[in-house]
Amino acid sequence: MRQSFLLTKTKKQIEGDEKSLNAVLLIRAGFIDKLTTGVYTYLPLGLKVLAKIENIIRQEMNEIGGQEILMPALTPKQNWEKTNRWEGFDALFKLQGHDNKEYALGATHEEVVTPLVKKNIFSYKDLPKYIYQIQDKFRNEPRAKSGLLRGREFLMKDLYSFHKDEADLNNYYQKVKLSYFKIFKRLGLKDLTYWTFASGGVFTKYSHEFQTLADNGEDIIYICENCNLAYNKEIITEIKECEECKASKDKFKEAKAIETGNIFKLGNRFSKDFAFNYIDENGQKKDIVMGCYGIGLSRIMGTLVEVNNDAKGIIWPVSVAPYQVHLLALSDNKRLIKKSEDIYNELTQSGYEVLFDDRLESPGIKLNDADLIGLPVRLVISDKTLKQASVELKKRSNDNIELIKFEKVVKYLNDNLK
Amino acid sequence: MRQSFLLTKTKKQIEGDEKSLNAVLLIRAGFIDKLTTGVYTYLPLGLKVLAKIENIIRQEMNEIGGQEILMPALTPKQNWEKTNRWEGFDALFKLQGHDNKEYALGATHEEVVTPLVKKNIFSYKDLPKYIYQIQDKFRNEPRAKSGLLRGREFLMKDLYSFHKDEADLNNYYQKVKLSYFKIFKRLGLKDLTYWTFASGGVFTKYSHEFQTLADNGEDIIYICENCNLAYNKEIITEIKECEECKASKDKFKEAKAIETGNIFKLGNRFSKDFAFNYIDENGQKKDIVMGCYGIGLSRIMGTLVEVNNDAKGIIWPVSVAPYQVHLLALSDNKRLIKKSEDIYNELTQSGYEVLFDDRLESPGIKLNDADLIGLPVRLVISDKTLKQASVELKKRSNDNIELIKFEKVVKYLNDNLK
Repeated sequence: MRQSFLLTKTKKQIEGDEKSLNAVLLIRAGFIDKLTTGVYTYLPLGLKVLAKIENIIRQEMNEIGGQEILMPALTPKQNWEKTNRWEGFDALFKLQGHDNKEYALGATHEEVVTPLVKKNIFSYKDLPKYIYQIQDKFRNEPRAKSGLLRGREFLMKDLYSFHKDEADLNNYYQKVKLSYFKIFKRLGLKDLTYWTFASGGVFTKYSHEFQTLADNGEDIIYICENCNLAYNKEIITEIKECEECKASKDKFKEAKAIETGNIFKLGNRFSKDFAFNYIDENGQKKDIVMGCYGIGLSRIMGTLVEVNNDAKGIIWPVSVAPYQVHLLALSDNKRLIKKSEDIYNELTQSGYEVLFDDRLESPGIKLNDADLIGLPVRLVISDKTLKQASVELKKRSNDNIELIKFEKVVKYLNDNLK
Repeated sequence: MRQSFLLTKTKKQIEGDEKSLNAVLLIRAGFIDKLTTGVYTYLPLGLKVLAKIENIIRQEMNEIGGQEILMPALTPKQNWEKTNRWEGFDALFKLQGHDNKEYALGATHEEVVTPLVKKNIFSYKDLPKYIYQIQDKFRNEPRAKSGLLRGREFLMKDLYSFHKDEADLNNYYQKVKLSYFKIFKRLGLKDLTYWTFASGGVFTKYSHEFQTLADNGEDIIYICENCNLAYNKEIITEIKECEECKASKDKFKEAKAIETGNIFKLGNRFSKDFAFNYIDENGQKKDIVMGCYGIGLSRIMGTLVEVNNDAKGIIWPVSVAPYQVHLLALSDNKRLIKKSEDIYNELTQSGYEVLFDDRLESPGIKLNDADLIGLPVRLVISDKTLKQASVELKKRSNDNIELIKFEKVVKYLNDNLK
């Protein structure tokens, strides 16, 4: 993509009252735009990041047998009344249609997926089933001041599993746990992310969260330094010692974190409300046992920025960077432009995604913009490097600068980026 | 995909009061589920169709310079007040947040995209720009009884173009027209789709629609039999003779059609309201000139079913079919199952998308389901064909049945499907 053609320009300052680090950097660099509190537009660069996060999550969900569907945002009041959440769920946005019926905007989809899957499952032979979607969610948050970490409209992957019994649920629950850690690994977040006990619900004493360490995280967790298990502050008074290794609470270290994923055993909490049962091997009617597994895509994007930045801007990991390479032509010398075009074409044809800064701007502006946007590899062609038939290569994640001969650029990237 | 694993089962009848042909067929075949009037879930088969339509449209939008973004559904009242559409636009779903502010669910996005693009365009050098999204839209339709043809929540591609003057807009408008016909060609709808004059708006006398002939279409159009230009009924009294070829109105033929796309010249209708202007080559401040271009993805899916079906079910075109091949194993004879598995693996490895009916169901049920689901090619392995080391191949679109030797199946598909 030629930067001269790109919709967005970088910004030194931003309008309005946005204070969260991730949103400020993403707005300044042209990844998102703020429409109103907790509501953002994904601009061309930001949508590319979101699509890459989406692809990673989709691949891993398919890997564990997930079947993708897409449920609506507009959900009828009667479904929420069945589960007693029309009144109980304060974060629901409610509205009325010209048909005088009331609706909620989907904040979660147990109320839709449960009666939907019920239409297709009758016997133990139809079980288990794993159904997920990647879809826009709405929550009527009274305060939404953490940028993409807490949106009022946000993109989420929600997976629901349907089982014949608790043993089968427990088995799949472990599979999803491993799948989530694979996702965090691909996002470069694994080392910062802790398996965390949190408050449960109707069916189990605890639920489980994936908490990613970050200075601006809204959650506080306690990490057992002995075994690395963590506990959300909301349950810490209930905990006597580490549930895993039995270490005493002296070993717990307090930290701020972002809840990047959460998984619940729902048991028959929702299947009961929708009379969703099946006929087992002995001809007996049994309740369906359910699990649900969430991960916020836009929140992941915000988290990545919170943990990968410096004073100059964002530092994207290769796996989700909108482009892998930022190619900067630092003068309008005709030979230099021609050479830059050649390299741009060569890299693109070799399968690299390249943002090519072909603008008529000063070297200082181009270098600053490259740091702010934060693509993994910066290639600079200046009058000086041109004389040496070379580009200057710098990774955004460190300060080393290397001169690479023109003809070796692709090989260098093949060896270092793939 | 093994059909034994698929979430959905086909249905002989459907619950509720759905009457529209496209929705009845799509629900019975397991492509969609109806949550409430005008609101549907896309099930695994349906989401695959939608994704293929989406890819075709995205490719063609990128081809004409479109930059993809994703705007929110939750849009502030103040933006709609600026354009006088908060009261004037009856189809807006309105709601209130815990912050006591009012919002509309996006029914169209001029009110969001105009101030957004304004932040990035200052001079003629920044123009033109073409910005699009593929996104969920909401319309508070009093009656929504045509299935996917008129949803209250539906998926739409909306492109907005920003120009320095009308000549540049007119130029791009023609480009989009050609792009849309390329899209309809890839969807197999081109021969049924007419370039149609419709009522305009503030800026131009007429807007233009793409109307696809269909018995259950909600629109009535008049086609000039001399030049194939069409006119929406809403403007036919204004028309004296064909605007294109000057043929008299005797030459017009009435037909029912579905509005599958529409394009508008907006002029400065929205840029004026948002004080969106630029500095031209002579240092003068000028209004931005805009165009907008819509195409409904879910409506396209409904249209495809309306025009491609018979008494037995749906007939998908290859370009959007969820799977290209339906492989049916018609007995549970061990050798037959083994051979079916081999062919399934061979086809999948050759890059074909295959739905493999490995269920323990009768041949009659399997054959009926295949007709209802409507994949382009059906391959049947029965005890009889097995003896001849062959599969029975039938296209959904005609009645010819051919016996193809096992080792020639991939070659046959390569020659006939690609």
